[in-house]
Amino acid sequence: MALLIASSSRAEEFAAFARALDPHLDVRVAPDLGNVAQIEHALVWQPPKGLLKTLPNLRLIVSVGAGVDALLDDPDLPGVPMVRFVDADLTGRMREYVALHVLYHHRRMSEFRELQARKVWKYLAEPAAHEVRVGLMGLGVLGSAAARALQHFGYRLRGWTRSRKSLDGIACYAGDAELDAFLGETDILIALLPLTGATRGILNRRLFAKLSRHGRDARLPGPVLINAGRGGLQVDADVLASLEAGELYAASLDVFEAEPLPHSSPLWSHPRVLVTPHNAAESAPAPIVRYALKQMAAVRRGEPLRNVVDRAQGY
Amino acid sequence: MALLIASSSRAEEFAAFARALDPHLDVRVAPDLGNVAQIEHALVWQPPKGLLKTLPNLRLIVSVGAGVDALLDDPDLPGVPMVRFVDADLTGRMREYVALHVLYHHRRMSEFRELQARKVWKYLAEPAAHEVRVGLMGLGVLGSAAARALQHFGYRLRGWTRSRKSLDGIACYAGDAELDAFLGETDILIALLPLTGATRGILNRRLFAKLSRHGRDARLPGPVLINAGRGGLQVDADVLASLEAGELYAASLDVFEAEPLPHSSPLWSHPRVLVTPHNAAESAPAPIVRYALKQMAAVRRGEPLRNVVDRAQGY
Repeated sequence: MALLIASSSRAEEFAAFARALDPHLDVRVAPDLGNVAQIEHALVWQPPKGLLKTLPNLRLIVSVGAGVDALLDDPDLPGVPMVRFVDADLTGRMREYVALHVLYHHRRMSEFRELQARKVWKYLAEPAAHEVRVGLMGLGVLGSAAARALQHFGYRLRGWTRSRKSLDGIACYAGDAELDAFLGETDILIALLPLTGATRGILNRRLFAKLSRHGRDARLPGPVLINAGRGGLQVDADVLASLEAGELYAASLDVFEAEPLPHSSPLWSHPRVLVTPHNAAESAPAPIVRYALKQMAAVRRGEPLRNVVDRAQGY
Repeated sequence: MALLIASSSRAEEFAAFARALDPHLDVRVAPDLGNVAQIEHALVWQPPKGLLKTLPNLRLIVSVGAGVDALLDDPDLPGVPMVRFVDADLTGRMREYVALHVLYHHRRMSEFRELQARKVWKYLAEPAAHEVRVGLMGLGVLGSAAARALQHFGYRLRGWTRSRKSLDGIACYAGDAELDAFLGETDILIALLPLTGATRGILNRRLFAKLSRHGRDARLPGPVLINAGRGGLQVDADVLASLEAGELYAASLDVFEAEPLPHSSPLWSHPRVLVTPHNAAESAPAPIVRYALKQMAAVRRGEPLRNVVDRAQGY
């Protein structure tokens, strides 16, 4: 029985942790597969398409990230159970990222940074948190944890999901029919949706134009986008066009249509765009490997798996 | 009975709110005092020294800010009760400022901003919150609220105060004897102390050199200073010297020895210093004026005042 690690980043780190945590485990790192018949488990992040189908005795796929869209895009993906990485470490990091960027834009830090660069000491009016309307697209494990952190500061929260959810203190909107109402009352939009056929490109110029339409209620210079979900949710060119047109005032982007973000992208140098390299919730190797070993043990014992991907829903 | 507003900023705004909230109130804005014998209450921020002693029937001084050091520096300060502004609005804003800047430095945003300016896509290892040791100097109303927000994210918290305090989940240190132990285990230092004879200049190079001495435990590139207290706590030149020497890695400064921060200060252009114009907790005029009117009503009714300044302690 062997564990294959097929990850576009940190593969050797994962392997070292796995060997440290279970010295008896046969750990292999792609592309050195050895005897493929011995591989029963795979810990993967962006594995080459077609790789997994070459493993005849595969019983479990563990995704390093919460987003499994790239995996599901593999037409030869074996039909074995696949689990997403979900744990307190990843959730905590996402909660930090969202709170950091909501606070940054609420407290008008892009403008204060520009003023500092010009050595200008100038007060800017900042709304109270309860005057700022934060809208979350996606209220899964990560979205809910982010919402609870934002509640601590007193933000006015609303959420939008495909199917209706109910969370304390959050005005919940659902489905296409209620999307416009949700957007019209949102000053800061947080995207934490899975990437599926229904959500690909949802963050486009038509959507941005609907944000915070009730201008008289808005207390910030303009709408803000925070995308900590998947790059495929957003149309990069539309983010720029909406920033130019004033439909968006600022953005924090951790994910992009193409990653790494190409050197030629104007997003790099926009003064009110914060670019981070897809590490909003970059977990340390230890909790990822620990999680994989736990799920492998469950498979061996015939126990139920947690956080299994629903292939029909796409996440 | 009249209310005098003597404030170096937003005086007319305060007056407009006071008149709106109590149309019968006689509101005056310094330097237009009118008949000084009629002035019983004063709402003040950095009033000219000696002004208050010219009011023979003054019964109450309300400070617009939480810090009253400038007021206590007035050798002619009348002996009437003086109250600090304390309310949920100010506390909430300070909690936001502290959480924002702790998250900013913990998530290595100064480095990510530099990488973005160079269009470099590069992962940086970020510690989990429970690996980051945040030390609060001052655990009053503002420090305690900031600590509770940081607890939500799971930071390892410790606090230092002149006299011992006890707060859930916070390792509490007290007095000069325990200051070094507190500093030696602090990665991110937050100053929220009142400015008194004992705290003036406490944020100096000797103190910075003691931060996070247990280098092997440190998970950040170096110690970070966040001063949201009073400018007089810090020696500006020492902040710079310690940044140069690597005793400090980065800083968020909302207050300075001289304000506005002089154009000539190198702090403006240091790549890892965030300058804000003393507005960490710049309350809106409405809650300040509402608070002042409430305290004035208490004086009239002979009821006890809240948040009275202890002149012996200096805050």
